[in-house]
Amino acid sequence: MIKLQNDDLPSRIEVSAALKATENLVKHTLKNSPKAINEITTHLSKSAGKGIRAKLLILCAMGEDGLVPKEAVKGAAAIEIMHLATLVHDDIIDDAKTRRGITSVQSKFGKREAVICGDYLFCLSFASISTIYEPYTELVPNFAKTVSKLCLGEISQSYNNFNTEITFFEYLKIINGKTASLFYISAYGGATLGGFTKSECKNIGRFGSYLGMIFQILDDCKDYTFTKNEALKPVQNDLKSGVITLPLIMSFLKEPKLRGYTKNIILDGIEINKILKEVDRLDGVNQSLYIAEKYSYKAKKILQNIKNEEKYKNLTLLLEDTTSSIKIT
Amino acid sequence: MIKLQNDDLPSRIEVSAALKATENLVKHTLKNSPKAINEITTHLSKSAGKGIRAKLLILCAMGEDGLVPKEAVKGAAAIEIMHLATLVHDDIIDDAKTRRGITSVQSKFGKREAVICGDYLFCLSFASISTIYEPYTELVPNFAKTVSKLCLGEISQSYNNFNTEITFFEYLKIINGKTASLFYISAYGGATLGGFTKSECKNIGRFGSYLGMIFQILDDCKDYTFTKNEALKPVQNDLKSGVITLPLIMSFLKEPKLRGYTKNIILDGIEINKILKEVDRLDGVNQSLYIAEKYSYKAKKILQNIKNEEKYKNLTLLLEDTTSSIKIT
Repeated sequence: MIKLQNDDLPSRIEVSAALKATENLVKHTLKNSPKAINEITTHLSKSAGKGIRAKLLILCAMGEDGLVPKEAVKGAAAIEIMHLATLVHDDIIDDAKTRRGITSVQSKFGKREAVICGDYLFCLSFASISTIYEPYTELVPNFAKTVSKLCLGEISQSYNNFNTEITFFEYLKIINGKTASLFYISAYGGATLGGFTKSECKNIGRFGSYLGMIFQILDDCKDYTFTKNEALKPVQNDLKSGVITLPLIMSFLKEPKLRGYTKNIILDGIEINKILKEVDRLDGVNQSLYIAEKYSYKAKKILQNIKNEEKYKNLTLLLEDTTSSIKIT
Repeated sequence: MIKLQNDDLPSRIEVSAALKATENLVKHTLKNSPKAINEITTHLSKSAGKGIRAKLLILCAMGEDGLVPKEAVKGAAAIEIMHLATLVHDDIIDDAKTRRGITSVQSKFGKREAVICGDYLFCLSFASISTIYEPYTELVPNFAKTVSKLCLGEISQSYNNFNTEITFFEYLKIINGKTASLFYISAYGGATLGGFTKSECKNIGRFGSYLGMIFQILDDCKDYTFTKNEALKPVQNDLKSGVITLPLIMSFLKEPKLRGYTKNIILDGIEINKILKEVDRLDGVNQSLYIAEKYSYKAKKILQNIKNEEKYKNLTLLLEDTTSSIKIT
């Protein structure tokens, strides 16, 4: 019933081939799901994410020979499918109409279908990871722990909705759970499949975490800067639904009385532009980008331990691409 | 972070001790979850189900010595937590106000919290199963496949809402997915942990499936017979939300023109009593109970292969208790 096969690949493959195979595997899996759910998963297959988590996993699995084990393709597909599952469920929570430029599952098929579709993708992801279990006995429990951390991050965010008293560190803890955890396991899991030592896996796992933190901080900044078309998802959604993110928190730190002022505005749900103007005046986005830069610096230091030149180059590029998706102005 | 430990148990234990340990483990896990989700899971711990899936798993794990391996406790707790996860998500889908006699998570904490809480419990369940992976390498992929089958059953049911043309076999296929699949893996998984041969595991897995079919058919009958207080969940919910179950399908078979008539009533959502009266007149509940009896007969035949007398007796009792929860009148 669950098909997530890549048995026709040679045991070690080029990075580019692994990336292509992962993309194909995810699409194939979504398009060839059982009849009952096929319409929904086929809809999801029409739009792909950037595949940054898959890329991270595959690059971290790269060995001295510049190749990656074929199991990395299954692992990367599992991560992307898990990510997709969380997006489908996120859209129920946020009542989002679009995702990745297409109609969201809950909007097109209904809440009921979105709940079940997300659960189904969860299973698909676990099924895939578990088929590469041996001899990587820690992968499945680690993966389950990671995803539970993700859930805890999501729920903490939910509890902190409309909480203008949220601290800088509380925010970091939340995004560490809801976003960086999946980046962590991508990097850690990739290195595990690549046969690296536990200490090397943990180290590159930390790189993954930092990359995830940067990714989320920049994503949160987009809510304050991007137009609807650019971000491919509705902007100012965070603020409208009471999610307080870094650009606003950095503005609070500069101007504490803004906390109370903001609370009234977001609870009213009107004149959101007033907050945007304040964040702009107080340089909230650039302040956030500086924080992202700090993570970038830490992440670069970890990469210095990588011996393979191509691997170093590629991971540096991935980091730079992520960090520079918005420039400090 | 995820705690689902039973390491202080001896390696083989009595069935009654295993049942108690499972109940304690589930409660302990729910009560001691991380802070972010603790209020919700503590709420869930206040009410327990009948634990029929856990009991099935533990009984199927019983060896010739009349004892079960302690891993069965982790397995049984994982199954119960997965079942709980599906209930939490079901309640979002059905907009249910109560569950097991307490307020549902979505009703008490909100839709957002219920989505994430279900996801968290999913992870907890997979994390638990994966810690007993070795040497049972097939357990996790089998478990993931089973839960995906459950999702497919749920979604097929959803697609068939208000479909009065649904056939007897389509109904059976749906409940085989949404309910019997978890019973199957409980029995199959229990036997696996008990060290039985693959063929014995499959055989007892079939017993589990049949038990699940009986359980669901009887549960569907309750919607047509029980009062709100007896069933501990709102009755006539299925019908009101357009779910066509066996008592009605059996009535359709006797009186085909009822299909069109029913469609109008359930789409209107009024005068549900008219349908109840028709099902009563056409003996829909008793006809359904006869189908359940047929499964019971098949299930009993499988039990005849069991050598251990106590195991035979206990599984027979479990079957009889399930089958006789409503009597044919």
